[in-house]
Amino acid sequence: MTGEIISVGTELLLGQIVNTDAAYAARGLADLGISVYYQVVVGDNRERLSTALEAAFSRSDLVILTGGLGPTGDDLTKEVTAEYFGLPLAEDPAIAGAIAARLARAGILCTAESAKQAMVPQGARVFPNQNGTAPGLAIRQDGRTAILLPGPPREMEPMFSSQIVPYLRSELDGTIRSHCIRLFGIGEAQLEQDLPAALFAASNPTLAPYAKNGEVELRVTARGQSPEQCEEAMRPVIGTIYEILGAYVYGVDVPNLQTVLVHELEERSMTIATAESLTGGLVSERITQVPGASAVFALGVCTYSDSMKAKVLGVAPTTLDAFGAVSRQTAGEMAHHVRELAGADIGVSTTGFAGPAGGTPEAPVGTVFVGIAGLGQTRIIRLGFDIRDVDARSQIRHLTALNVMAAVLRLLKKGDKA
Amino acid sequence: MTGEIISVGTELLLGQIVNTDAAYAARGLADLGISVYYQVVVGDNRERLSTALEAAFSRSDLVILTGGLGPTGDDLTKEVTAEYFGLPLAEDPAIAGAIAARLARAGILCTAESAKQAMVPQGARVFPNQNGTAPGLAIRQDGRTAILLPGPPREMEPMFSSQIVPYLRSELDGTIRSHCIRLFGIGEAQLEQDLPAALFAASNPTLAPYAKNGEVELRVTARGQSPEQCEEAMRPVIGTIYEILGAYVYGVDVPNLQTVLVHELEERSMTIATAESLTGGLVSERITQVPGASAVFALGVCTYSDSMKAKVLGVAPTTLDAFGAVSRQTAGEMAHHVRELAGADIGVSTTGFAGPAGGTPEAPVGTVFVGIAGLGQTRIIRLGFDIRDVDARSQIRHLTALNVMAAVLRLLKKGDKA
Repeated sequence: MTGEIISVGTELLLGQIVNTDAAYAARGLADLGISVYYQVVVGDNRERLSTALEAAFSRSDLVILTGGLGPTGDDLTKEVTAEYFGLPLAEDPAIAGAIAARLARAGILCTAESAKQAMVPQGARVFPNQNGTAPGLAIRQDGRTAILLPGPPREMEPMFSSQIVPYLRSELDGTIRSHCIRLFGIGEAQLEQDLPAALFAASNPTLAPYAKNGEVELRVTARGQSPEQCEEAMRPVIGTIYEILGAYVYGVDVPNLQTVLVHELEERSMTIATAESLTGGLVSERITQVPGASAVFALGVCTYSDSMKAKVLGVAPTTLDAFGAVSRQTAGEMAHHVRELAGADIGVSTTGFAGPAGGTPEAPVGTVFVGIAGLGQTRIIRLGFDIRDVDARSQIRHLTALNVMAAVLRLLKKGDKA
Repeated sequence: MTGEIISVGTELLLGQIVNTDAAYAARGLADLGISVYYQVVVGDNRERLSTALEAAFSRSDLVILTGGLGPTGDDLTKEVTAEYFGLPLAEDPAIAGAIAARLARAGILCTAESAKQAMVPQGARVFPNQNGTAPGLAIRQDGRTAILLPGPPREMEPMFSSQIVPYLRSELDGTIRSHCIRLFGIGEAQLEQDLPAALFAASNPTLAPYAKNGEVELRVTARGQSPEQCEEAMRPVIGTIYEILGAYVYGVDVPNLQTVLVHELEERSMTIATAESLTGGLVSERITQVPGASAVFALGVCTYSDSMKAKVLGVAPTTLDAFGAVSRQTAGEMAHHVRELAGADIGVSTTGFAGPAGGTPEAPVGTVFVGIAGLGQTRIIRLGFDIRDVDARSQIRHLTALNVMAAVLRLLKKGDKA
C-alpha cells in the first residue's frame, strides 16, 4: 500500500508553524508498513488543494490530509475532499452535540460556524476528537482512502495513535505490531556495525534505527496473522539486540529517559536530589516533567557561583580554591552534599564549561564532570564534548543531562545484581 | 516572485525527523515578500526528485532545495539539479580545502566520498558552510533560481539567515528590511482587535502577527530603495504598536524572553534567584540557557516537598500547615527566602498544581502562585489555567515560566520610572 500526506494550511506555507503533523503521520504509516513517497503542503486554497489531492491519488492508495477542518470559511479540506469523491455533506447529530457541549464548557456559544464542523461526507467513518471540536474522517471509495485529521498536533496526534492506527491496521491484510527499543551511549553507526546485518536486511520482522539528539531508537515491526504471531516473530530479534547491546538499552516502548528513571526510582522507593551548575536546572526540569515525580524527586539546587556552591551546598572553599569549580573534586562534593541536604538516596551533580566563554587549557569548553553519590559510593564521570557549532551550549547541556540520567539508571541496575 | 520549497530525504518521508528546514525557509521567504504556494518532500530518489523539481519550476521562479547534499551515494540533490540545468560538476578547490581541514580537526581522513561534496555545478554561486562540510549553492538560469542547502538545521539555518537572505535581497528589486516585535500577555485575537485594521491591510510596510505558544510576534516588513527608506517607513508603524500595546512588548529583534531578562538584569547589575516547585527547574534552566547568565543568576532551588521547602528554603512549617504548599503565603515566603539565601536582588518562586493529579476545590489543577521578592516589595501573582488537553502539564509549566520572567521584566521597567 502506498500513502501520501497532504498538509493544509497557509500558516505552514508562511513558516509560522512547523509541520510536525506530517512527521507524526509519516512515522505512523512507516510503522504500519505503508510506503510514503511524497509529502505536500498547500495553503487554504480550493484550487491548489484540489490539484494536490488529484495528484496524490494518481500515485497513492491512501491520502492523509491534516488541517483545514476548522470552523471558518478558510477551512476547505472537508469540502474539497467530499467534492473529489462526489459525496454530499450532512450533519452528524452526535458530533454536533459533542461540539456544543465542548463549547458550552468553555463558555462559548455554538454558532453556525462551529456547526459547520459537524457536517460529514455521506458514508464517511467519523473519529471523535477528545481534544478539540473537529472530528477526524475516513472516506473509502474504489480502493482509494482519504483520512482527514484536525491540524493542531494536540488534537491530531492522540486521534492518530488511538483511532487511525487501529483503523488502518484493520483495513490492512493481517496484523502489524511493533516495539521500540531505546538506547543511550551508542551511536547509530556503531550500532549498525555491532548488530548482524541480516537483522537490518530482513523483511519480516523489519528493524529500523532512528538517531535522535544523542539517543538511538531501534524499531522492530512484524506482520502476521495474529498479534501473538507478530510478538513471536519479534522475540528472537529483540533477544539478539539485548544480547549484543543490552548495556545500552534503557527501555522498550517507553517515552524517554526521564520517565524510565522516575519509574525505576519509584519501584525501589528511592529518592534523588540534583546539584546543577553546568545544566542550570535542566536535569531537575526533565525529571519533574514526569507526572508523579514528586514521589522520587527530593530537591534540586542550581548553583552557578563558587560562593553559592559553598554556602548552599557546603562545598569546601579549599576544594574550590585548589581544584576550581569545574573539577572532579567539586563534582563529588556537590553530589555528596546535595544528597545529605535532601536526605535523598542518590545525589547527582553537574559542573563544566558549556561555553561560549570559559574553559582552561586543561579543561576546555565542553569539559564536564558528573558526580553521583549514593548506592554505597561516589562516582565521578568526566565527559568531553568538542562541539563548535551554533547550538554548542544547548547541545552540551542536553547531552550532559542525558548522561546523568543514564548513569544513574546503570547504577540502579548494577545495584540490583550486587 | 513565487518560491517553492523541496525537502529531500527519506528520513523525512519515514517521519524520523521533523521538517523544520521547510518552516525556516518558508518564514525567510515570507519576510522577503516571496510567495510560497507549495512545499514538497521527496525521498533520496533520482526520478521522484527530478519530477518534483520540474513541477516546481513549472509554477515558481525560485526553488529552495534542502537536504541530499551529503557525501554518500544516496545524496542526489546536487546531481539531479545540475542535470536539470544541464550543467557539469567540477571541484571547487576552496571548498575541498575547507572540507579536508574540518575533517582533519575531527580526526577523520578525507575520503573520495567527502571529496564529492566539493563538486560544484559550473557557474553556481557557492556559500561556505560554517557548521558542516556541504556548501550551499545557488544556480540561476533564464529567470529560474535554484538554491541548494544542507539538510541538518544547525547547518541550514545559519547559512540561510546570514548568506541566503542577503543574496536573495540583492536579487530582488529594491531593498527589504523587517523588525520583529515580541509581546507577552496578550492574545493574537485581542492584538488584532486593538491595533488599527489599516496596519494589517497595508501593503508597505506589511504587518503580520505570529502566535507561538503563549507569546505573539508582530513582524513589520518594508520595501524601499534603501535601508534608510525602509526604516523610515517602518518607524510610524512601530510607534503605533508601542503606543497601543507598549505594555505587552518585551523586545524588538530579540530571540526570547530569557535573553531580554538576562540583559536587563545585567544592565542594572542585579542578580536573581529562583525557588521553584511547580516548574521544577524550568525557570532556572531558561535563564541559564543565555550565554553570560552566570553574571545575573545567583541560585536556583527546586523543592518539590513540604519538608524541603521548610528545610532548604526556610518556609515556616506553620505557613505550610495553615495555607498549604500551593498558596499565596508559601509563594511569598519561597521568593523572600531564596532571595535572602542567595543574597540576590530579586527572588522569584512558583508553586501550583500542574496535574494530572493534585489540586483542591479552592485551587484546582492549573492553579499557580508566582512570588517575586525584591525591588522594595513582595508581589504575588495568581494564575489559573484551564487546560485539559494531553500536554496540559507541560503547557502549565511553560506558561508559568513565561509569566515569571515577564513579571520580573515589568517590575524592572516600573522601577526605572519610579
